[in-house]
Amino acid sequence: MEFRGAHILSVKQFERSDVDRIFEVADTMVPYARRERITRVLEGAILGNMFFEPSTRTRVSFGCAFNLLGGQVRETSDVKTSSISKGESLYDTARVISGYSDIIVMRHPQMGSVNEFAKASRVPVINGGDGPNEHPSQALLDLYTIKKELLSNDRQVDGMNIAMIGDLKHGRTVHSLSQLLLLYDNITFTLISPTELKMPAEIVSELTAAGHKVIETEDMEAGLNDNHTVYLTRIQEERFTTKLEADIYRGRFRLNQSIYTRYCQPNTVIMHPLPRDSREEANELDNDLNQHPSLAIFRQTDNGVVVRMALFALVLDVADKVDDSATDVGWYTQGRF
Amino acid sequence: MEFRGAHILSVKQFERSDVDRIFEVADTMVPYARRERITRVLEGAILGNMFFEPSTRTRVSFGCAFNLLGGQVRETSDVKTSSISKGESLYDTARVISGYSDIIVMRHPQMGSVNEFAKASRVPVINGGDGPNEHPSQALLDLYTIKKELLSNDRQVDGMNIAMIGDLKHGRTVHSLSQLLLLYDNITFTLISPTELKMPAEIVSELTAAGHKVIETEDMEAGLNDNHTVYLTRIQEERFTTKLEADIYRGRFRLNQSIYTRYCQPNTVIMHPLPRDSREEANELDNDLNQHPSLAIFRQTDNGVVVRMALFALVLDVADKVDDSATDVGWYTQGRF
Amino acid sequence: MEFRGAHILSVKQFERSDVDRIFEVADTMVPYARRERITRVLEGAILGNMFFEPSTRTRVSFGCAFNLLGGQVRETSDVKTSSISKGESLYDTARVISGYSDIIVMRHPQMGSVNEFAKASRVPVINGGDGPNEHPSQALLDLYTIKKELLSNDRQVDGMNIAMIGDLKHGRTVHSLSQLLLLYDNITFTLISPTELKMPAEIVSELTAAGHKVIETEDMEAGLNDNHTVYLTRIQEERFTTKLEADIYRGRFRLNQSIYTRYCQPNTVIMHPLPRDSREEANELDNDLNQHPSLAIFRQTDNGVVVRMALFALVLDVADKVDDSATDVGWYTQGRF
Repeated sequence: MEFRGAHILSVKQFERSDVDRIFEVADTMVPYARRERITRVLEGAILGNMFFEPSTRTRVSFGCAFNLLGGQVRETSDVKTSSISKGESLYDTARVISGYSDIIVMRHPQMGSVNEFAKASRVPVINGGDGPNEHPSQALLDLYTIKKELLSNDRQVDGMNIAMIGDLKHGRTVHSLSQLLLLYDNITFTLISPTELKMPAEIVSELTAAGHKVIETEDMEAGLNDNHTVYLTRIQEERFTTKLEADIYRGRFRLNQSIYTRYCQPNTVIMHPLPRDSREEANELDNDLNQHPSLAIFRQTDNGVVVRMALFALVLDVADKVDDSATDVGWYTQGRF
Repeated sequence: MEFRGAHILSVKQFERSDVDRIFEVADTMVPYARRERITRVLEGAILGNMFFEPSTRTRVSFGCAFNLLGGQVRETSDVKTSSISKGESLYDTARVISGYSDIIVMRHPQMGSVNEFAKASRVPVINGGDGPNEHPSQALLDLYTIKKELLSNDRQVDGMNIAMIGDLKHGRTVHSLSQLLLLYDNITFTLISPTELKMPAEIVSELTAAGHKVIETEDMEAGLNDNHTVYLTRIQEERFTTKLEADIYRGRFRLNQSIYTRYCQPNTVIMHPLPRDSREEANELDNDLNQHPSLAIFRQTDNGVVVRMALFALVLDVADKVDDSATDVGWYTQGRF
Repeated sequence: MEFRGAHILSVKQFERSDVDRIFEVADTMVPYARRERITRVLEGAILGNMFFEPSTRTRVSFGCAFNLLGGQVRETSDVKTSSISKGESLYDTARVISGYSDIIVMRHPQMGSVNEFAKASRVPVINGGDGPNEHPSQALLDLYTIKKELLSNDRQVDGMNIAMIGDLKHGRTVHSLSQLLLLYDNITFTLISPTELKMPAEIVSELTAAGHKVIETEDMEAGLNDNHTVYLTRIQEERFTTKLEADIYRGRFRLNQSIYTRYCQPNTVIMHPLPRDSREEANELDNDLNQHPSLAIFRQTDNGVVVRMALFALVLDVADKVDDSATDVGWYTQGRF
């Protein structure tokens, strides 16, 4: 695809070469994200960071990524303060806001809203999550992390075995990641979930149609065996009709030090889209793994910054200019990574 | 007036030469707002963007304007998080906040609050809307838009015919715009509204005393005829005691493609302060006009950025220095305007 | 202490030489805070301004301080929008957010939370207030103000007489200031409060153990006599179980022009951590003193900016580099201070 001026709305718009290009640019962003260098390549540019649904983490991650390229960020974090509550259409909101900024990240609770917004926008729009639907930068950072973690184990995404665990029915991240993995070859998916929270059948069909192998099971201990990556998810309480209904499943599939040691292959990469639910009744990924070298969850969020920097740089067509304005960092940065 | 260091609190403080000066500076801001060039003239300056009442659009517009001049923005968007809720006076808030920033934009639900705040502030204050009272930058961007749109039809503000339509009783924007138009000559105002929502009598008196002609009517079709500009407004639901009361008037005066073609002169400029209420029961300005070349509503909001840049530049006395630090833009900006 | 890369969590971590160093650096920040010069020393650095409890004033003060050093600010002002509400641990929040920024300021309603957060953070953390516990930058700006104000009266902190007035039980600021004053010599504290709202006994013990003299009284008029500084506080309504309970004490100790003239020594410095409660029933520090030259309350908040700049500069190890990138200010700044 041509990234220049494009909207980034769905993982479905990417071919494998597009993903490769994003990751290649993301790699070049690492020295900036690690504060080894700074760049002014987007000096004067403004990101409209429009969050019509709360999400501190994603909002701040996008904002930082833009700042690290030298740009400014204007933002909103609340739908109640917006004109949408006075009957304004997404068309109007998009026409107006796109007159203020050079690029827009938009999160909105309603499926399809960001697409509708993008149609009316005069500047490129990145989908920061439209309800249960898409959140492409999350899927990209997940895949980027898997690729890097496996590489340090001398493996690659093609041919890997991955277990996905937990609420596979509602988990937007496992859906999008699966979609991206359609672009790769010969993967074995072990899908571990309660029967009621199974991966949607159409996604399973797509995976098998793409030549991947899919195993569905409720037996976590058997399922954990022989994977290169395990991807845990939180019970998506907010997608259930009642908290009680969510409680049935909470805490059913857990990974901790002793289970990992007993059932997983050594060096199996541990991932989670975060936030993980650390309350006693849930605790799907135990804190006793916090110091484990294979725990990749915080490298995931770090990778989110470079992947988002790459998307900004590609869409605004400055990927090749970042280093031109680079200078050294003069303040204390030791011990960061 | 002397802009340097002045507060911008009310349209009443301007003479015609002041308005001319603001518009002249606004014109010089266009290349920056269009991302043809960037400037650092306000590098190091801080805007205190203090919104004690929600307004995403106005807040982001002011913030972008300041960023486009190279300055930084610190802001609040919520009255509940402020010390005002702990019994702090506006005097104290102003003394404190003005120690943090170089200039302040303030919005507050209470009439007169921004004036009171400005008296205690140690830095210039721009009124971003004090309840039902004033919102001078909105009136300026409306007039700037009318002037530019008419100019492209080889007309000018003096001698024009303008129709104002809708809730003329509560609409702050039509009040302020009328006030500004007192500075011009020989205008015919056609005021179209339900009798109960008529333009306040004192404003009508001021207009006629200034030599303008005023026609008041409930007959939209007759009223639309022979205007150069039509300015539509939303029923200001939030100013009514009940939603039911507002419902009586909602949807009564509507402009759409077929009405425009039938009753308006060709090239009649269509304006609206936004947000327009696009819900079926209201829909005072129909989406079927969205592609019409005379629909100026999004040019209005774009003009808001350059008018606000002009106010900042004049008050901080950098209007003549903007170009000195100008450089080219290095990122993708095509198709913006 | 070694400031470079350190967390700033409590006033208890400072020795007197540390406080001297902070104030020495704060003095060098004055020309920047007064907009006589600008610096880019932190260009490219990002502050994570994480306010999980509302506080416009402190949040904006820290943000401005960082901007004045040339850095960027990403922030949150609301706990409800954070992943903490989805069961995320402070450990996880800290690991994630510290991957985005170069330094973090955190405010949180829960005592000890910021310490816990700092343990997991990969970048330095400044405590912006953890519930009723600590708020070290406030204590530092209070002491910095006392020192400067007394100096202009040819006095110093050692040997001074200070009255603390009001809700000394709940007032976090008087606790922290007392703690800092343990580092000084030979101070006389007159603690004026209702018996039920007395300074905690352990703080009084520490003060006397450090060789200071402590007088506790309910008699404000007698207590006011013979002080160099009076420090008033608001009844901390939010720490009482009911508003009614707070009402008993509200308005009991008040300072105004006539009381000051009658009972205080000339030039007695008047301080208050702000916000002051200016509602008629409270009004612990009357507006009729607003023009009094000894009223230091707005110089206090101004000093907050330079003290916070000093903390950032010391922790990020740029205190000696600030002037290197300094340039002149080109916009209107007259009449600021």
